[in-house]
Amino acid sequence: MTQSVDQKASAAASAANAWLSAFQKALTARDADAAAALFASESYWRDIVSFTWNITTVEGGAGVADLLRATLDEVDPVGFLLSEEPAEQDGVITALIAFETTAGRGSGLLRLVDGKAFTLLTTLDELKGHEEPLNGRRPSGVRHRAFRDRVTWAESRVREAAELGYTVQPEVVIIGGGQGGIALGARLRQLGVPTIIVERNERPGDSWRKRYKSLALHDPVWYDHLPYIPFPASWPVFSPKDKIGDWLEMYALVMELNYWGSTTCKSAVREGGGWSVVVERTGVDGTVAEVTLRPRQLVLALGASGLPSVPEIPGREKFRGDQHHSSAHPGPDKYKGKKAVVIGSNNSAHDICAALWEAGADVTMVQRSSTHVVRSDSLMDLGLSDLYSERAVAAGMTTFKADTIFASLPFRILHTLQAPVYDAIRERDADFYRRLEQAGFDLDFGEDDSGLFLKYLRRGSGYYIDVGASELVANGEIKLAKGQVVELTEDEVVLGDGTRLPADLVVYATGYGSMNQLASDIIGQDMANKVGKVWGLGSGTTKDPGPWEGELRNMWKPTAQEGLWFHGGNLALSRYYSLYLALQLKARMEGTPTPVYKRAEVHHTE
Amino acid sequence: MTQSVDQKASAAASAANAWLSAFQKALTARDADAAAALFASESYWRDIVSFTWNITTVEGGAGVADLLRATLDEVDPVGFLLSEEPAEQDGVITALIAFETTAGRGSGLLRLVDGKAFTLLTTLDELKGHEEPLNGRRPSGVRHRAFRDRVTWAESRVREAAELGYTVQPEVVIIGGGQGGIALGARLRQLGVPTIIVERNERPGDSWRKRYKSLALHDPVWYDHLPYIPFPASWPVFSPKDKIGDWLEMYALVMELNYWGSTTCKSAVREGGGWSVVVERTGVDGTVAEVTLRPRQLVLALGASGLPSVPEIPGREKFRGDQHHSSAHPGPDKYKGKKAVVIGSNNSAHDICAALWEAGADVTMVQRSSTHVVRSDSLMDLGLSDLYSERAVAAGMTTFKADTIFASLPFRILHTLQAPVYDAIRERDADFYRRLEQAGFDLDFGEDDSGLFLKYLRRGSGYYIDVGASELVANGEIKLAKGQVVELTEDEVVLGDGTRLPADLVVYATGYGSMNQLASDIIGQDMANKVGKVWGLGSGTTKDPGPWEGELRNMWKPTAQEGLWFHGGNLALSRYYSLYLALQLKARMEGTPTPVYKRAEVHHTE
Repeated sequence: MTQSVDQKASAAASAANAWLSAFQKALTARDADAAAALFASESYWRDIVSFTWNITTVEGGAGVADLLRATLDEVDPVGFLLSEEPAEQDGVITALIAFETTAGRGSGLLRLVDGKAFTLLTTLDELKGHEEPLNGRRPSGVRHRAFRDRVTWAESRVREAAELGYTVQPEVVIIGGGQGGIALGARLRQLGVPTIIVERNERPGDSWRKRYKSLALHDPVWYDHLPYIPFPASWPVFSPKDKIGDWLEMYALVMELNYWGSTTCKSAVREGGGWSVVVERTGVDGTVAEVTLRPRQLVLALGASGLPSVPEIPGREKFRGDQHHSSAHPGPDKYKGKKAVVIGSNNSAHDICAALWEAGADVTMVQRSSTHVVRSDSLMDLGLSDLYSERAVAAGMTTFKADTIFASLPFRILHTLQAPVYDAIRERDADFYRRLEQAGFDLDFGEDDSGLFLKYLRRGSGYYIDVGASELVANGEIKLAKGQVVELTEDEVVLGDGTRLPADLVVYATGYGSMNQLASDIIGQDMANKVGKVWGLGSGTTKDPGPWEGELRNMWKPTAQEGLWFHGGNLALSRYYSLYLALQLKARMEGTPTPVYKRAEVHHTE
Repeated sequence: MTQSVDQKASAAASAANAWLSAFQKALTARDADAAAALFASESYWRDIVSFTWNITTVEGGAGVADLLRATLDEVDPVGFLLSEEPAEQDGVITALIAFETTAGRGSGLLRLVDGKAFTLLTTLDELKGHEEPLNGRRPSGVRHRAFRDRVTWAESRVREAAELGYTVQPEVVIIGGGQGGIALGARLRQLGVPTIIVERNERPGDSWRKRYKSLALHDPVWYDHLPYIPFPASWPVFSPKDKIGDWLEMYALVMELNYWGSTTCKSAVREGGGWSVVVERTGVDGTVAEVTLRPRQLVLALGASGLPSVPEIPGREKFRGDQHHSSAHPGPDKYKGKKAVVIGSNNSAHDICAALWEAGADVTMVQRSSTHVVRSDSLMDLGLSDLYSERAVAAGMTTFKADTIFASLPFRILHTLQAPVYDAIRERDADFYRRLEQAGFDLDFGEDDSGLFLKYLRRGSGYYIDVGASELVANGEIKLAKGQVVELTEDEVVLGDGTRLPADLVVYATGYGSMNQLASDIIGQDMANKVGKVWGLGSGTTKDPGPWEGELRNMWKPTAQEGLWFHGGNLALSRYYSLYLALQLKARMEGTPTPVYKRAEVHHTE
């Protein structure tokens, strides 16, 4: 990650090198004001763990100076250099950089405009003395020469499985064994941090397998790689749910994770500077045993979605057909020829409606509020393909570089960078959107027209990546009803305007509660209140109340509760941020000083 | 594989381009003599499937002309170009090349000396119209838009598993599900060739897991990658047997192989242009059912080793201790303080002796004939590291390029290329070898001092890659006895010179029968005789009787029996040659003409 290159004397390289030299000089002199003067009046420095032991963005010269005054002596940053030839476009020089701190080696991205920093990203990529055993550092696998009473790899794995959590306590317990827990578990295993992953499902991947049968990833493969083992060139663009389940299962096996499946976390309370975590573990023989784990660090990786959220609707108990939340929808097979009403109009609602239609059901979607729809092809072509596509790979783009570029875009202005993408998508798909609206569908592109990714960051909901269902809505094959559901009868769904929808099946594709709510079941309401809202930027848009924080609240960084961490997100976020969360946990295990700059304030107990 | 590069005007590139132009001109003119004149008087053209639908090496101008006269019209080779900048060293220009034929796209390697070809390798890498669905051709994974009665990925996998071999016949059946069968199965899956892998063990990887517990790969990780999913950067240099077992198991899962574990092949007979293969398949409930498979093609991937070979020794039935072949050795745990006699002095013998010593047994190795020993470190540093090492990877070496370079070395002169490597190893490890010989160990470096790889190719035995046991032999911790075993008593092993070795345990590390012998159990002795010896080059050295064939007999290429193929070897050979065997099978499935040039004659019925 920190390989140096020929410091070529292109104009862009000269400018970037000059800036880095001046920056280094100011840092070495501990002159925060001089360093701040190198930033434009509108500028953003996003640091991920390297200067701040936090994930935080400071703004303008004042923000830069404040960050540096608080951190410089401890961090002692040195060795700034270009890690590859910079690019220049439209007056912006973009340079990948590398540097070192007291604790480790870092990298990042610098954008210069008129010789001043417009954006700076700095990340800590590895801890000195605790480098991951990769490539030239990989283990031998077997100790050559002869040793009395050798323990084989298989024996040591069996021993570890028998001891960890019983006679030997883990440093970290991760609650939740989806892609988030698995990616983090793999990083921690490489860093030598003893970890147990607790997952209520039996096998890794089951959280995907158990969902509705037509589910496939809506994100393309180039965006979805896990750390260490990228998907092969043969992997499909959009992973079917069971195939991603198999991948996660094999990944947990070959990355040697201590994965406790069929295990439920009952509670976690603070105890002696760490945690007492009570779990119920089901053995291979089906017996259930309560085990108390005593880790120093507790990570909640419970999924970006909380508990299924089913609206209180009068008459639900009277309804004689099938009714279930989307998370419990078994698939369409037994509903051929039946009348299905799907309440909701986001991703799950669309997927389930389409699958029911494909199986021959009579399907009505109930849209309760406007929805952002973007066609998968357009999102890939216009939104992702510079960074995550076959074309990008062919042009030499690596996953880490793409992630770095993506992470370097300041959240404060991300909506202004995203809006033109969605303008272009609207133009490209004008006919599609027109037909959808003519069918009565309420469309939006976010409150500031910034599209899907901002909705994901702000609220984690409110959109559909179209893989086919919208066409069925537009041409009336999926019927559309609008408004709030006010009542269920024995065989109908009744809307606020009096519309009565005959139904053999009602699916509540009505979303999920908050991550905070899910956490409170484990850590208790008081502690959940103490750490506050999880996810969201504080943009002041729907479901993302202010004040502005500038980073995802409580994600992958120190919370108001010592020893408590949140991890999760889609495969891409799980991949990228798992590194930085793992390094924070490793540093604490090793006793490396980790003074946190500007720990975020808590504003919402929600 | 066939990407073109700037045809730079370096002297090496000019010379290589000039040669390729002249070669192309001669080929286009169908002038075999003109093409032959471009080869040096001592020269070797190795073709893998691209011109010959065979794996064959021709020698000198006469050989080249003969090959071309037989193949040119059908093959119509065009588009020869350099695929990267050539290298020049000691007057030899080495150039990676690409070209096309009627049937597909190929690549290779050209070595020029004084403007003439000294060696040429040509390989067929893909079939036109049947390119593997990789990278830009990868499948979508899910069909976007809506379709009535959609079948999900999971449903189609379940359906395929239920149908294939019962209501739908596979094109190919592979007997043997070790790394060979698995690598070939993965290639065939990508090529869309319906295939069943039959394996007597329950799970993929069991053929590794079931061996003695201290077993680890003696080949380093860079040499061992399977196709499509390379080992991650965290993978150990030397895979412990259970870890490689896990990898093979996950690989078979995620590559979607139809892997019939717990299934034994009883017989295979020709029937109607294909095969009738009778297998006994054990279901998950333990019931055994006989199934008759009717593939067009049958691949035997039974392992480079045949059946365990245990010498007939008088008194074996009288011996009161434990005795077993090395393949059945359970590990050393119950032999602490016991007297163990291990008969043999190759890899397994050394590994088992060392493990027994480590567990506290009193160990004697019985050396019956001289053995080639090479230290693992030295083999890696001097034998493999230019092609397969962290250093090679860092210098931009890819696995395919390394395999190509390795495959380009003509078997006829490989011993002369290898001998200097072993001279250097002998010099480097002179003290080690001296001490080993002082302990009485009979050393050799092959009959022509060409070392390990040639022994592997010629006879597949006769060596030990030292990972520690030799030190125990040298210092007397493992006792050494020499000669033939003539008798077992109740509690002794008796040697030809009258030496009596007290024993609680006798391990027969006495090798394996031939692949041909193993095949005859399935295809019958007559057909086994018809196809003849499998493996070996025909060098006329011990266990590799002539006449010279110049390629491994019967491996990965057409045999004397239509529809019968042999596959196997270590992980590296399984990786590389599985591509070319898969392409031969695919071409036959698609009805592509596959005229075989110079099918090898059969000289040995064993």
